[in-house]
Amino acid sequence: MIYITRQEHFNAAHRLFQKELTDEENLEIFGKCSNPNWHGHNYSLFVTIKGEVNPKTGFLINLKFLSKIINELIIEEADHKNLNLEVDFMNGILPSAENIAMQIWKVLEGPIKLQGAELHCIKLYETERNYVEYFGT
Amino acid sequence: MIYITRQEHFNAAHRLFQKELTDEENLEIFGKCSNPNWHGHNYSLFVTIKGEVNPKTGFLINLKFLSKIINELIIEEADHKNLNLEVDFMNGILPSAENIAMQIWKVLEGPIKLQGAELHCIKLYETERNYVEYFGT
Amino acid sequence: MIYITRQEHFNAAHRLFQKELTDEENLEIFGKCSNPNWHGHNYSLFVTIKGEVNPKTGFLINLKFLSKIINELIIEEADHKNLNLEVDFMNGILPSAENIAMQIWKVLEGPIKLQGAELHCIKLYETERNYVEYFGT
Amino acid sequence: MIYITRQEHFNAAHRLFQKELTDEENLEIFGKCSNPNWHGHNYSLFVTIKGEVNPKTGFLINLKFLSKIINELIIEEADHKNLNLEVDFMNGILPSAENIAMQIWKVLEGPIKLQGAELHCIKLYETERNYVEYFGT
Amino acid sequence: MIYITRQEHFNAAHRLFQKELTDEENLEIFGKCSNPNWHGHNYSLFVTIKGEVNPKTGFLINLKFLSKIINELIIEEADHKNLNLEVDFMNGILPSAENIAMQIWKVLEGPIKLQGAELHCIKLYETERNYVEYFGT
Amino acid sequence: MIYITRQEHFNAAHRLFQKELTDEENLEIFGKCSNPNWHGHNYSLFVTIKGEVNPKTGFLINLKFLSKIINELIIEEADHKNLNLEVDFMNGILPSAENIAMQIWKVLEGPIKLQGAELHCIKLYETERNYVEYFGT
Repeated sequence: MIYITRQEHFNAAHRLFQKELTDEENLEIFGKCSNPNWHGHNYSLFVTIKGEVNPKTGFLINLKFLSKIINELIIEEADHKNLNLEVDFMNGILPSAENIAMQIWKVLEGPIKLQGAELHCIKLYETERNYVEYFGT
Repeated sequence: MIYITRQEHFNAAHRLFQKELTDEENLEIFGKCSNPNWHGHNYSLFVTIKGEVNPKTGFLINLKFLSKIINELIIEEADHKNLNLEVDFMNGILPSAENIAMQIWKVLEGPIKLQGAELHCIKLYETERNYVEYFGT
Repeated sequence: MIYITRQEHFNAAHRLFQKELTDEENLEIFGKCSNPNWHGHNYSLFVTIKGEVNPKTGFLINLKFLSKIINELIIEEADHKNLNLEVDFMNGILPSAENIAMQIWKVLEGPIKLQGAELHCIKLYETERNYVEYFGT
Repeated sequence: MIYITRQEHFNAAHRLFQKELTDEENLEIFGKCSNPNWHGHNYSLFVTIKGEVNPKTGFLINLKFLSKIINELIIEEADHKNLNLEVDFMNGILPSAENIAMQIWKVLEGPIKLQGAELHCIKLYETERNYVEYFGT
Repeated sequence: MIYITRQEHFNAAHRLFQKELTDEENLEIFGKCSNPNWHGHNYSLFVTIKGEVNPKTGFLINLKFLSKIINELIIEEADHKNLNLEVDFMNGILPSAENIAMQIWKVLEGPIKLQGAELHCIKLYETERNYVEYFGT
Repeated sequence: MIYITRQEHFNAAHRLFQKELTDEENLEIFGKCSNPNWHGHNYSLFVTIKGEVNPKTGFLINLKFLSKIINELIIEEADHKNLNLEVDFMNGILPSAENIAMQIWKVLEGPIKLQGAELHCIKLYETERNYVEYFGT
C-alpha cells in the first residue's frame, strides 16, 4: 500500500453566516468571517490517495490523471468564485474549511475509485497557519 | 544604512473591473478576476524600511512599532474585507496587486518617517507565485 | 470526524544536560546541545484536534478559541524564555524536543476537552529539518 | 510512543520507461518522464521513526545517528547520480517516486532497528506539489 | 515604476564538464556535478519585469501573458529535458546556474519588451539553498 | 555581473540589553528580548556575492568554497552558542539582528575578495517574519 499526494490551489471569496440570524448575531458567532461584503482566501488543497503500485508502471495511478480529476471537478468549479453563491458542490452548505473539505471528499471519492485507487485524505489550508483534514468518516 | 523587513498578512475579497464596461468586456480584459460575485486572496505583505542603526539599541527602529503601524493602518483596514467596497485606502482605486502596493506605500510612508526611518519597498504576494514590488517612484 | 490544525511559534533558549554528569560527559551524550552557555531555537508548534463538525457553525471549534488556549497556556509561558530555568510546564524536565512535545500535550489536553474537542497530535519543529510528533500514548 | 522526522535532500537524474517497449509506447505510458535523454529532480526525503523516549537523554535516538544513517546509506548513494544506472538500491527497479520510497524503506529498516527505534514512514517529494508516503506494508 | 515577478518551474538533467578535459580533471573542477551519467534538479525560476501601471487595467502587463511567454519559450523547452543535449537556448553552453540564468535573459528580453514592459531580473534556484540572479549586464 | 546566494543556518541564544541599565529599563527598551535568562533563535543566513562568470567553469566561484568560508568563519563560531558570551565576532556588540548582520559582513568581506568575488549582501532572518539586509555601507 502506497500513499500519493497532489497539491492544487484555488482562490475564492466566501462569508460565514446563518441566513436566519441578524448581522450582529452572525458577527458574534463567526467574527470578521461574517463580513456581509465577503472576504477571500488562497486555498491550498492536498489530495491523498492510496492503493497498490502497478508493477508495470511503478505508479499507483498516473499523477496526470489525478491532477486532471482535481482540476476538472474542484479547481475549475471553485477558482476565482464565490463559495456561497456559485459553486455547485457547496450549494446550501456553510463554506467553513471543515465543510469545504468534506464536500470535496464527496466529489472526488467516486472518480478516484474509477481510476483504481482509493481516496485517503483531503487536507485544506485556509490560511498559512490553519488547515483541516478529512479522512471520509 | 540597514534594511529591515516585516511580513504581515491579510485575507480579502476583490474584483477587477471597470464600471463603464460590460461584464463581457471586463471578462475579456480581466479574465476570471472580473467575476461579479467576487473572489479573494491571502495577501502576504512585506514592508522594508531603511536607515541608520541606533548605537544604543542596536535597532533601526523597534520592530514592534513597525508591526503596530502596519497592523493599525493596513491590516485592520483590509483584513477580512472587500477591497472594492469598504477599504478606505483603496477607495475609487482598481484593486490590482500593483495598485494595492502603491496605495499601501502612500499610507505607510509618513508614519514610518515619524519613527525616524525611511520606507524602502512594499512587496505584495497575491498568490504564491505572483508578487509586485514598489519602491515609491 | 474532522481534524483541525493551528500553527503557533515561540522562540526560546535551552540546554540539554544531566546535572549529575560533568560537562565532558554531557558533551559526549548531547553534543553541542549541551553548551553550558545555552543556545536557542524558533520552535514551530502544530496543534491538531479532532471531533465532529457543529452543523450550526460548520466549525469543529472556533479556531480563535484554539489559538487563545495555545497562546495563553504555551506561547506566553515559553516565548522568549529559557526552557530549563523559567517555564513551569518544563520544570524538572530535560527540554529535548520529545519532552517539550509531551509536556505541551499534558497542558493542552484538558482545556481542549472542555471546548468539546479532542487533542489529536502535538507536532513540534525544533529546526527546519527536524520535528517530533506525539499522539498522547 | 514518540515519532521523530529528519529531512534530507538528494538531486538525481532518472527516466521512466520499460526496456521491452518502444520510445513511442513509453511516451504514451510515462509522458515526458520517458525522455531518453533523462531529466532530474531535487528529491526531498522525510524519514520518520518511532519508539520510546530514553528518560536519561530525553531522546528517542540521537538525531545525529539518524542523519548519519540516512546520509551514508541513501544520500551518498543517490545524490548527483542517475537512479536508473548507478544507484545500488534501485538496481533493476523502475525509479518512480513510489518505487524509490519503497526501496529506501528496505535499506533503512534494519539499521534503524539496530539503533533501538522503528522505521515508521518514508515520505518523498519528487516535486514541490507531488509526494508519496510508504509505511512498510 | 512597478516590479512584478512570476515564478515558474522546470525539472531537468544536466552535467557540468569541459569536453576537452578528462573525467578526472572534470571531477576536480566540478565535483560530483561532473558525473558522466548526469544528475538533475527542480529548477525554480523567478522572472521580474518592470514598467508603468496602465491606469485602465491597473496592470503593468497581464500576468497571463507573462506566464504564457515564460512557458512557451523556457518551460516547454527545458522541462523534463537534458540541458546539455536537447535545449536550444543552452546549445554549446555549459549549463551552470549562472549560464542558464543569462541564457534565459537573452530569450525573454525581446518578447517582454514587445508586451510593453522591461525585463528586470532572472532569479534561478538550482537547489533550495543556492540561487543566482542576473540583471542583464 | 552575476549575483549568487548561499543559504546557511545557525541556532543561538542571545539577550538584548545595556549593562549600564537596570532590568526594568532594559525591559522597557528591549521588551521580552531583554529576558536575563536568555532566549534564542534559528537564524537563517543568506550570503550574496557578485562578480563575473569564469567562462571556463561557468561559475562565479565554486559554491563549495563559498559554503566552506561561511561555515568555517560564521556557522562554526555561532551555531549552538550564546551570541553575548562566546562568539568572537560579536564580542562587545549588542546582538540585535542588525548588528549581527553587520558583523558577519566584516568577517566575510575579505575572504570572499580573496576568492575573486565581491560580497554584495548579508540577509539575516531572526524569525520567519523579520529579516535585515546589509549591503556594506
